[in-house]
Amino acid sequence: MSKFWSDVVHKLTPYVPGEQPKLTNLVKLNTNENPYGPSPKVIEALKAEAADTLRLYPDPNSDVLKAAIASNFNLQPNQVFVGNGSDEVLAHVFQALLKHDKPLLFPDISYSFYPVYCGLYAIDYQTIPLASDFSIHLDDYKRPNGGIIFPNPNAPTGIPLALNEIECLLQENTESVVVVDEAYVDFGTESAVGLINQYPNLLVTHTLSKARSLAGLRVGYALGSVDLIEALIRVKDSFNSYPIDRFASAGAVAAMQDVAHFEQTCQKVIATREALVRDLTALGFEVLPSGANFIFAKHKTHDGAELTAKLREHNIIVRHFKSPARISNYLRITIGTDQQSKQLIDALTVVL
Amino acid sequence: MSKFWSDVVHKLTPYVPGEQPKLTNLVKLNTNENPYGPSPKVIEALKAEAADTLRLYPDPNSDVLKAAIASNFNLQPNQVFVGNGSDEVLAHVFQALLKHDKPLLFPDISYSFYPVYCGLYAIDYQTIPLASDFSIHLDDYKRPNGGIIFPNPNAPTGIPLALNEIECLLQENTESVVVVDEAYVDFGTESAVGLINQYPNLLVTHTLSKARSLAGLRVGYALGSVDLIEALIRVKDSFNSYPIDRFASAGAVAAMQDVAHFEQTCQKVIATREALVRDLTALGFEVLPSGANFIFAKHKTHDGAELTAKLREHNIIVRHFKSPARISNYLRITIGTDQQSKQLIDALTVVL
Repeated sequence: MSKFWSDVVHKLTPYVPGEQPKLTNLVKLNTNENPYGPSPKVIEALKAEAADTLRLYPDPNSDVLKAAIASNFNLQPNQVFVGNGSDEVLAHVFQALLKHDKPLLFPDISYSFYPVYCGLYAIDYQTIPLASDFSIHLDDYKRPNGGIIFPNPNAPTGIPLALNEIECLLQENTESVVVVDEAYVDFGTESAVGLINQYPNLLVTHTLSKARSLAGLRVGYALGSVDLIEALIRVKDSFNSYPIDRFASAGAVAAMQDVAHFEQTCQKVIATREALVRDLTALGFEVLPSGANFIFAKHKTHDGAELTAKLREHNIIVRHFKSPARISNYLRITIGTDQQSKQLIDALTVVL
Repeated sequence: MSKFWSDVVHKLTPYVPGEQPKLTNLVKLNTNENPYGPSPKVIEALKAEAADTLRLYPDPNSDVLKAAIASNFNLQPNQVFVGNGSDEVLAHVFQALLKHDKPLLFPDISYSFYPVYCGLYAIDYQTIPLASDFSIHLDDYKRPNGGIIFPNPNAPTGIPLALNEIECLLQENTESVVVVDEAYVDFGTESAVGLINQYPNLLVTHTLSKARSLAGLRVGYALGSVDLIEALIRVKDSFNSYPIDRFASAGAVAAMQDVAHFEQTCQKVIATREALVRDLTALGFEVLPSGANFIFAKHKTHDGAELTAKLREHNIIVRHFKSPARISNYLRITIGTDQQSKQLIDALTVVL
């Protein structure tokens, strides 16, 4: 606490990301990174950027990157907003589109950065409890609101929502923005991007940190109507002119263009997930249905915090959330390689 | 205007950065980039990052980079805050440290992003007019305030302030934060970094975009007391966990460590500046004293906007500010290579 701090700083409870350990030789299944590296074409494009031209600013509007993303989704470049990771994109979304007189709505168990953004921008919000099976019931969001945001699939549960339910919400909720945070959508969940041209209040956010294997590069984007994108651009241009550096732009363009690498990677992760779910179930775990590159699982008899600690002794890191109490017995386990799944199952066989 | 926009978006007047033309073969003297590329050690470090490890998040705390910067200035790592360019650092500074009941003070002619940040965060501010010779008189800032910020050297004038004047302000102004924005300090201006351990309310901001030749990489930092840095970290961790990507970190570390390359580059730019000032003066320009890698100059008889347009016809871009009226006759000219200076002088000789 300090007389020099603005009022807002005293009230903040910052987001705590998953641990990024400096040890090597860990089986790192705690921050939902991709076990497979980026496309060789991405590596090649990145090497070419290590040059004298770094003395020059990048394009403040990231036109080439926006065109590559738009082309990927059959949208126009002015329906695309890019940022320094989808966390930065979401921050601008909260400030530009979700601060209104009526409260913002999001699930009580969801991405734990949402209430942090609300604190940063003094946004009034209400959380809507998940159903008893941890699913999101969109009917519960059909009430007065200044905006709605939810991940699909949800995090940390991994449970996907069907597209027709999202469209039903959009049909009823026409006066505020509906943000579908699709960070994990590429691992078997239906995307809402195809609805963008029909619903001017739909905004979809994506990241290159998961399915595109580029967590180390920091690129995310939002897709929506020109009207919504314009609000994000105005906030961005009042915050930081050049958020996308030359590497981030070049690597992201190459990643969006190498569709074959992307699809193969996703298929491998999905296949490993399905095998892991079977193995964990056989060991006495209950695993929630997942459309993501992670699963949310609890053991029938063993405590979640204790299992997490014991796995750490075997050099395996998974993520555990102490609160809320409803999920404190669950482990969130990132899908790694088949070999990493085997190491996890071997360790659990010893531990259980 | 849209019902979906938050109130703040309707009121924003975003910052407009200097043009980043997509044409090549231009003599680009409009955005104060370095004419010399980064150190070969930086290029080498960057190439090494184009690897499979990009699938992993970077260190959210940028510990290695903070240590490299701290070591450079004989400070502790917890006296360092890093961001995605100094514009992002400044945005967090405005939100975390400069929003108070009393108004923020800054010069009326200065970095034009300052009033934009105030708009974004609803910060009350007062501008203090520059003296008739365009210098900042710090005595004018000894009045009730919620914070003080000024660039040193000032932009777009390039005029440096003496360190003893800054220390005199710090001695009197103990109840609010004083930010010295030293984006251009390395081109012959005295830095206030040496005062940090004596004045807990002093914050100094730097960028790697100018003297370190890395505008394309987006890294900036703030140096100050642990108390001030803690406020910035809290805001950053409520906004974006990982603003510094793997390339930005590796390149910035190598740039901070190659002191010899940095010093040689700065000396060359300073020598070119001094020669250009002589040549422009001989052509009838009045040039303000500069401690930066740009100069601010007006011709005794020719109009500023007209000269800018004519230079553009000769494929030379300089920056011109239409307002305020006091500076509308000036050109802001980035210092390039000696060859670029010659092209500029040759073109002006034709134009004048």
